[in-house]
Parts: sequence; structure tokens; C-alpha cells
Amino acid sequence: MAEELVVTPWEVKGKVDYDKLIKQFGTSPITAELEKSLVSVTGEDNIFLRRKLFYSHRDLDKAIADFKGGKGIYLYTGVGPSNPMHIGHLVPFFFTKWLQEKFGVNLYIQVTDDEKFVFKRERTLEHITKVADDDIRNIAAVGFDPDKTFIFKDTEYIDHIYKLALKVSREMNYSQVKSVFGFNNMTNVGLMFFPSLEIVPTMFEKKRCLIPDAIDQDPYWRLQRDMAEKLGYHKAAQIHSKFIPPLTGVEGKMSASKPETAIYLTDDEKTVKSKIMKYAFSGGQESVEMHRKLGGNVDVDVSFLWLRDFFEPDDEKMAQIEKDYRSGKMLTGELKQMLVDKVNALLTKHRANKEKADSAIEKIKYSGKLAQKMWETTFE
Amino acid sequence: MAEELVVTPWEVKGKVDYDKLIKQFGTSPITAELEKSLVSVTGEDNIFLRRKLFYSHRDLDKAIADFKGGKGIYLYTGVGPSNPMHIGHLVPFFFTKWLQEKFGVNLYIQVTDDEKFVFKRERTLEHITKVADDDIRNIAAVGFDPDKTFIFKDTEYIDHIYKLALKVSREMNYSQVKSVFGFNNMTNVGLMFFPSLEIVPTMFEKKRCLIPDAIDQDPYWRLQRDMAEKLGYHKAAQIHSKFIPPLTGVEGKMSASKPETAIYLTDDEKTVKSKIMKYAFSGGQESVEMHRKLGGNVDVDVSFLWLRDFFEPDDEKMAQIEKDYRSGKMLTGELKQMLVDKVNALLTKHRANKEKADSAIEKIKYSGKLAQKMWETTFE
Repeated sequence: MAEELVVTPWEVKGKVDYDKLIKQFGTSPITAELEKSLVSVTGEDNIFLRRKLFYSHRDLDKAIADFKGGKGIYLYTGVGPSNPMHIGHLVPFFFTKWLQEKFGVNLYIQVTDDEKFVFKRERTLEHITKVADDDIRNIAAVGFDPDKTFIFKDTEYIDHIYKLALKVSREMNYSQVKSVFGFNNMTNVGLMFFPSLEIVPTMFEKKRCLIPDAIDQDPYWRLQRDMAEKLGYHKAAQIHSKFIPPLTGVEGKMSASKPETAIYLTDDEKTVKSKIMKYAFSGGQESVEMHRKLGGNVDVDVSFLWLRDFFEPDDEKMAQIEKDYRSGKMLTGELKQMLVDKVNALLTKHRANKEKADSAIEKIKYSGKLAQKMWETTFE
Repeated sequence: MAEELVVTPWEVKGKVDYDKLIKQFGTSPITAELEKSLVSVTGEDNIFLRRKLFYSHRDLDKAIADFKGGKGIYLYTGVGPSNPMHIGHLVPFFFTKWLQEKFGVNLYIQVTDDEKFVFKRERTLEHITKVADDDIRNIAAVGFDPDKTFIFKDTEYIDHIYKLALKVSREMNYSQVKSVFGFNNMTNVGLMFFPSLEIVPTMFEKKRCLIPDAIDQDPYWRLQRDMAEKLGYHKAAQIHSKFIPPLTGVEGKMSASKPETAIYLTDDEKTVKSKIMKYAFSGGQESVEMHRKLGGNVDVDVSFLWLRDFFEPDDEKMAQIEKDYRSGKMLTGELKQMLVDKVNALLTKHRANKEKADSAIEKIKYSGKLAQKMWETTFE
């Protein structure tokens, strides 16, 4: 029996059928036409769109129209600081950086330390704060516009958003959060209130908000879209990504509690190599002879999928890799080594940026133009 | 069929059977011995205790022991600012003032503007804030120790209590708030989270907190007592009052939506007289002749009950009133006029105090010793 598919902000179980999620969540696929329309505005295509990692949306067409028509848009995304960030966490931030560069608009990044604290009773705020501060450093290292980006931890910014969160909270009852998030009798009241906080930044400006994030966050936006216009705001638009699959196989999501499933941003070169060589699920054959004869299965080979989704932006090279791997000309070990090199190159660069991120952090948290304005604003 | 008895923080329906509530909520009656023990500490008795308006408790004996033994205690009470205050709202504050004077301890007063805002969708924050600020003025007029009292609106102080509220919220799941508060599928997530906020001030000091309030607030304290020691705090002690009955009869509670049920603190002398003469439910007989013959029923006569519970502190006078009214010597009109005079005397004095309350408000909100300390503190 196939494992049941469960996708919520807190759980991804089973092999994710992304087309099914589009139907289940009521979102729309990004058509070739829509992708073209986006590229006509940004003036540049993007690996994540070409490779269909960002594949689903809501009102992306309207966001493009608002931008082109002069009404303007803004960007919003976030991170939940429960455990150190892995490669999969960086994806939406790289894509968001690209969107900000192309649109030249404000970006709000919410660090949901409150959510991650209430999610499990045994967690200490000290631990969550440590992770959150490291996440902020990683995000700053991606390099956002220091005057058009504001990053905040909920517990630090609560004074400015609590009143609006209360207004949002009145629009969601137990029935709704139960059906949308799968909450139940055992869910604590902190986690039940939290969606109010995640919805608030979609109301930071009286413009349409475009949210680049993974598809598992969609339940929040369904609720947002039910209430936004009634409260005098725009329905938020989204552009949803698939998950980068876990190293260990295409089911579920990279998990911090299973280190073999993920590459952490702190993994050194040796660890990266050893994890990929040891754990990356292979679509290759059992022996070199068999592989040469039958070729590799690119649909399940995680090294191939990581290269395709994220690490090999050159389409020609990628096509060659696919051809060679499918034909058996390229062996699993060779494929894995390519990935190891790409991952280590990215992480080395990322860690160098992270070392130098002090000034960027200070700006996007406090002293940049947008951050300054946000600390002077209280939302009601 | 008798109307069903419902008592929650948001609803009081039916004739309240106070002995039944003690059993239902699992509290204890204040025995003669316990009252004596309290009076031996305070050095003075109190009308509300003598007349059994404050009639139920939890761990009052332990609070007295902590005070006598040098461990110390502190006081905590509050108000929900949905509608202008009436006479019934003042009761716990007068009693709390007496307790603070006798014990000489810190007092925290929470103004739950967030609760009242989320309770009904159609309420504006502007309205709630106006009511809250007027409530604070009324409370300040009661006259608390300016250096040992801190009054705060939740939305203003949230930055200092949000983290601890999150910790508290993890200890209450939907099953529990459903059973304790009668929440259901239609309850919004704001109201479901709110109990976390009301519980936080019971953890402001590492001493036992004694809460003087009406018995309908007890559900919060049941939850508090389930979690307090696990989180490293004391179980809160309470001393519970009955409700001053509505003018219109002994069932339910004074209601802001039914002006005839209550005397507001803003009612002028003429209004007070007209409301009492017109609406105060009488235990007298239909005609003067019948009344002289049969006498009045003090168990249902609201004017009598108000004098007994609150307005006539002189025990001898009160006994004489009871004797005269029961016997038919005193007529309903005479009884009502006594109450009119007492209520108007209290309100006139209260309004004069309210006029002069600016400096007291400033101190208990911001610049008094305790208030200053509280604005420098963040609870986790």
C-alpha cells in the first residue's frame, strides 16, 4: 500500500505528488505563458522556473499586472527557526533575492520563533533564539537590498503586530484551523493562534503581496485569501516551490532530526562528500556492468535531481548529464562527485558571505530605510 | 423548568446557586475560622467578608501562611474593558484596595483589551481603547498605592509578556479550553489563545499570587493551578466574590447591553434615583396595606441586597433595616430611597476622585516604583 500523502506546514509524509497538491490546495500550475509573462517583466529567466522547482501559484498574473500597471507589489517570505538550516531552506531565499532584484520592491522576512517555540513543549526559548539568530545570519548572507528588506523575529516585533494579529485572529475559528492545518484536540492554543501572526505581514502594505515559498505553507494563504478583502487588504499572491528531495530518497522532506537526509549549511567539505557518497539515493544499477548496459533512473536519483533543481544552472550541461546518466555512460560515482563539487562550492561561498554579514544584518534588522520605518510603525 | 445555570467569564445565565458553584468549580467556602485567620493578619474586619460577598477561595490559608511566614505574597486582579464600568465592577477593586492596605504588598491590574477586542468581531480597537482608558481612570480613583501598583493594557505591555504567554500556551490544548471555558468549533483562535495572557501575571513574582475576583473568572485559575508548579511558579490563590445582583432581579449579572440592570459610574443623581425607583426588583407587597401586614421578602429585594452586600457597612443599622423591612414597618419606597442616597454619595465621591486621578494614573501606569520596574522587565 502506498504511504499516505500528508503535507502541512509541520509535516510532509510520503512521496509528494505535486500535481495532486495543486488540485488538493486549489492552486494553479505556472503555465509556459505565465512564465513568459514573468520573464518579460524581470527581463531574465530563472533556473528555478525553467526547471519547474517553482511550479504552482495563486494570482501571480495579478501580481505581474499590478507591478506593470504601477500599483506596485511587495515580497514576503519567512523561516521557522527550529533547527539549523539546510540546503533546502536556502532555495526560496535565492529565488526571492532574484525577484527583489528584478522587481526592485520591498521584502519582509518573518522569523517565526514563536511558532517553533510553541510547536514542541520541550523546546527552550534559548535554543530557538540561537537558531533564529543563526538563520538571520544565513539569510543576510544571501544578500538582500539593505534598504528594502526588513527581517524580524516575531517575539521581538510583537509590540508592532499584536493588534493586527488580534484582528486577523477573529476571522479564524477552530473549525477552520482544524480543517486547514489538521489541528486537533491535543493542539495547544499557542499553535492555534500562531497563523494570525504569519498572516499579518501580508497586510504590511496596501499593495498586493507576493509570497515565494514552499507549497506546504499554502494553508496560511488560503485563510488569508478568505479574509483579506473583508479587512481592507489585498488577497496575497503566491509562487510555490516543490521541496528539494531528501538525500535518502524522493519521499518526504529533509529533516533535521535525520542528519543523513540533509546537507546543512555548516557541513564541511568532508562531511558533504561523505553524506552524498554514502546516503544520496542512487538511480544507478547494482554493478558497473549492469549500469553501462541499462543506464541510471533519473526520476529517483537524488544527486541528479539536486543538480537539476538547483546546482547545475547550465541547461546544455544538464541535458548532457541526463543523456550520459540515462545511457549508462556516466556512473553514479561520477554523478555524485559533480554534486559534491557544486555543493561545496556553494557552501564555501555562502560561509564566506556569512562571515561578512554583520553590517547587512544590522541594516535589514534595524538601520536600513525599510527597517527604520518598520520600527516606527504599529499595525492595527 | 428552572433556567439552566451557566457561569463562564463571558456569560452568567440563570439564578446563580453559589454553593453549587463551589462544588462545580472545586473551590472551598470561606469558613468562620479562615475569616478569623485573615482578620488576625489584617487587624481589621471587612464588610465584604462579614456579609459573605467574598465567600469562596482556593489556598487563601496558604497565602496567609506565606505572608505570616515571611515568604510574602502579591495581589493580582483585572478588568475587561468592553463597556463602561458599573457599580458591580468596583466591588473587587474596593476589596483589593483593602487587601493591599492591610498586607502592604504589590498589586498588578491587567486590563484585557485584547480579550474584549477578539470576543466580538464587530468591535473596533478604538472603542475598546476608549473604554479601557476610562476603566483605568475609574480604577485609579479607587486609590491604590502608587509605588506598589502596576496597571497595564495587554496590547501596550505585550512586548514584555508575549514570551511567557507562549510558554503558558503550550500547557493548554483545545480539549482543555473547550471543557473549562465552553469553547467550541466557532470560537476564534484569538479568544482561544487569550487565557495564556490572563495567566501570565500569576507568574510575575516568585511568590504566591492572591487573586481577588468574581467567581466567574475561576476557569483561568483552574488551568493556572494545573501548570504553575511544572513551570516553576506557585499555584495562584483566589478569593472569589458573588455578583452584585442586577437591579432587575437576582438572576444573571448586570449587563451593559441592558441599562436597566445596572447603575453605571457615570449615572447622575437623577438617573440613579429613577433607575432604582423604576427597576430595582422589590420584595415588597402589592399594596401598602398588604406590606404592613406581610412585610417584605429580603431574599429577592435587590435594594435590600445591594445595601447588605455593599452600601450599608454598619451591621447594627443593617440588622434594623432587615427587621423593619421584614416586619412591614419599612416600605419599599423608603428602602429604595436609602439605597438611592447611598449610591449617589458613593458615586459623587468616586467622580470627584476620578477628576483628580491624573497623577495617580501616571504613577500606576509608568512612573511609580513598581511600574518603572515592570517596564524594565521582560518575562520569559
